[in-house]
Amino acid sequence: MKFKIKREILLEGLNKVSKAISTKNLIPVLAGIKFDLKGKSLTLTASDNDITIQNKINAKKDEFIIEDEGSIIIQGRYVLDIARKLTDEFINFEVIDDLKVIISTENSEFNLNGISEREYPTINLEESKNKVYLSSNLLKDIVYETAFAASNEENKPVLTGINFNIAGNMMECNATDSYRLARKVITLDKESSENYNIVVPRHNIVELSKILSSEDEQIELNIFSNKILFKLDNLLFQSRLINGTYPNTSNLLPKEDFMNITMNLLDFYSVIDRVSILTSDKDKNIVNLETNGDVLTLKSSSAEIGKVEEKMNITKNNKKDIKISFSAKYMMEALKSFSTEDVEIHFIGEIKPIIIKSKDKEDLTQLVLPIRTY
Amino acid sequence: MKFKIKREILLEGLNKVSKAISTKNLIPVLAGIKFDLKGKSLTLTASDNDITIQNKINAKKDEFIIEDEGSIIIQGRYVLDIARKLTDEFINFEVIDDLKVIISTENSEFNLNGISEREYPTINLEESKNKVYLSSNLLKDIVYETAFAASNEENKPVLTGINFNIAGNMMECNATDSYRLARKVITLDKESSENYNIVVPRHNIVELSKILSSEDEQIELNIFSNKILFKLDNLLFQSRLINGTYPNTSNLLPKEDFMNITMNLLDFYSVIDRVSILTSDKDKNIVNLETNGDVLTLKSSSAEIGKVEEKMNITKNNKKDIKISFSAKYMMEALKSFSTEDVEIHFIGEIKPIIIKSKDKEDLTQLVLPIRTY
Repeated sequence: MKFKIKREILLEGLNKVSKAISTKNLIPVLAGIKFDLKGKSLTLTASDNDITIQNKINAKKDEFIIEDEGSIIIQGRYVLDIARKLTDEFINFEVIDDLKVIISTENSEFNLNGISEREYPTINLEESKNKVYLSSNLLKDIVYETAFAASNEENKPVLTGINFNIAGNMMECNATDSYRLARKVITLDKESSENYNIVVPRHNIVELSKILSSEDEQIELNIFSNKILFKLDNLLFQSRLINGTYPNTSNLLPKEDFMNITMNLLDFYSVIDRVSILTSDKDKNIVNLETNGDVLTLKSSSAEIGKVEEKMNITKNNKKDIKISFSAKYMMEALKSFSTEDVEIHFIGEIKPIIIKSKDKEDLTQLVLPIRTY
Repeated sequence: MKFKIKREILLEGLNKVSKAISTKNLIPVLAGIKFDLKGKSLTLTASDNDITIQNKINAKKDEFIIEDEGSIIIQGRYVLDIARKLTDEFINFEVIDDLKVIISTENSEFNLNGISEREYPTINLEESKNKVYLSSNLLKDIVYETAFAASNEENKPVLTGINFNIAGNMMECNATDSYRLARKVITLDKESSENYNIVVPRHNIVELSKILSSEDEQIELNIFSNKILFKLDNLLFQSRLINGTYPNTSNLLPKEDFMNITMNLLDFYSVIDRVSILTSDKDKNIVNLETNGDVLTLKSSSAEIGKVEEKMNITKNNKKDIKISFSAKYMMEALKSFSTEDVEIHFIGEIKPIIIKSKDKEDLTQLVLPIRTY
């Protein structure tokens, strides 16, 4: 294997696959990145058994020059650090004596012990017959707007992922920890000929969203019973799926509400932020909301520390008033997912879910359960 | 107690004293900030028994209006969070029923449980007869250029601080963990009539350097046998001193060297940074340096990972060559303390300390011990 490559091109590829380098030392070869130089491209692969990332770099005149084909596994952490810290424009790679990797520039020479590609596990990155198409920017939005609501508790594995429920041209994305729910409903450009109801581990899809470039690209979703392969132009990202039946959450979202309020999002957010100063994570950061005509009062209190009260003017859709308590932390996280100017808070009843929506982001619904304080 | 204050003025004062709020719950009252409103100023005090910080805010027309004198202790964490998160320009403070603190703005009202000032420990912030004067920018430099070299190991307490050795108009500042030494020698503008040889805990003086404003101010050092009081215009900062005799390090710095090299600092730094990629903290990040005429070679190797070699052109003061090994981490930290373009590396011998100096920063000397590799 022998090639010369512009440092920044290699670094970009290494950075992408590095998210899948295993940090557990169970299978040492998985701490490596597989370099495959064949035909007119270099394929980099990393896998920790949970996710696999493969990135393809195509030969390009004056930027990536291939001299000899070949394959080798290089320790991921070191090759990434070398590519980061070299300051030269180009880097030379060469494998000698089968397993010695020489990485060199004008004044630097690294001589690393490689591992034979035969020791790398076979990873099946097959495609499915039916594909679902999604834009990469939309996928980033889904992750930003829903992932925070998934559960951290491993005793309900299915709630630690994001649910994708696909039927025809409708895709419903859900995340819930059973105290709140984030839901985004998307109309797909191209109808899916099969229906799917899958759960992707939250951590894995967050990692995918981080390595997507800022350019909007088409992503091909290849869904199997136990895994999903996201295919982009030069990137493959495969994740396991979480087994189990995702709860049906549609009945939580009522068609009619009791009363709703429209407010400036930032104002409402900062009022809750202040009122929750005296609350603690331990008691779920409970704050009390009360409307009285066009004035909303938010309160919280702690016997030890003291109490706080804030007022703000609001616009309601009718004359009904409400008194309800909820977790400030959950409400703030739900509000943050709307980057809109205004937000609508829908109340169904004092012991019914609170629904957050926005006229400027109709595909997104957030739900926060109230907390009984009496 | 009753006053109205511009939020940003109060916040600045609270931020400064907050570094001394106790986070251990041994003495609950020390988690509070003492507010003392007397005459024409508000004095804020916080102390964790190790350091005490006092900040004085003077009444100012239209910005800080005093209505009623008084004293109270308010829980530090909460009052700081309230001042941070309020968005109003002014905040009102009022104590009612002796111990209820009302913090309010137009739409917000916090009602906190205060603690009587009688419960606060008496802290003696006396001044000494003899004073040592130092500019605040110079103190920041001393901390930046020496503190990193102090020890983290509590079994040699005296090495966990910065040593100030003052005689006449000379002040020598030392920090060492016995593998390296940072020394800054300053000529004081005003001679001290007493000599001192004290050790200030590293953590404490780092905290002081963080709260010094960007303006250059004069600091008055009031030194006692067991404590030091730094006095600025509106700020008092008192720290305990570390007991024990600081080692005499002057004999480590020889008058004559065997050979020295002049190099661009950033180039040398980045070469060491790369050569140390394959080393580990466990084996002290050992790299080997070798000169051969005007070429310097840096090498490191690890049986498991591989080896690396870098070359760079250098200017030497004579034709002698050297071969020496040292900790890349320690050398890089020493280099970082010079923000000069060039740096001089002085060699005394293969098993003698390496001295780092710069023509553009003559008051600073860094020393790194070599590591025997044979």
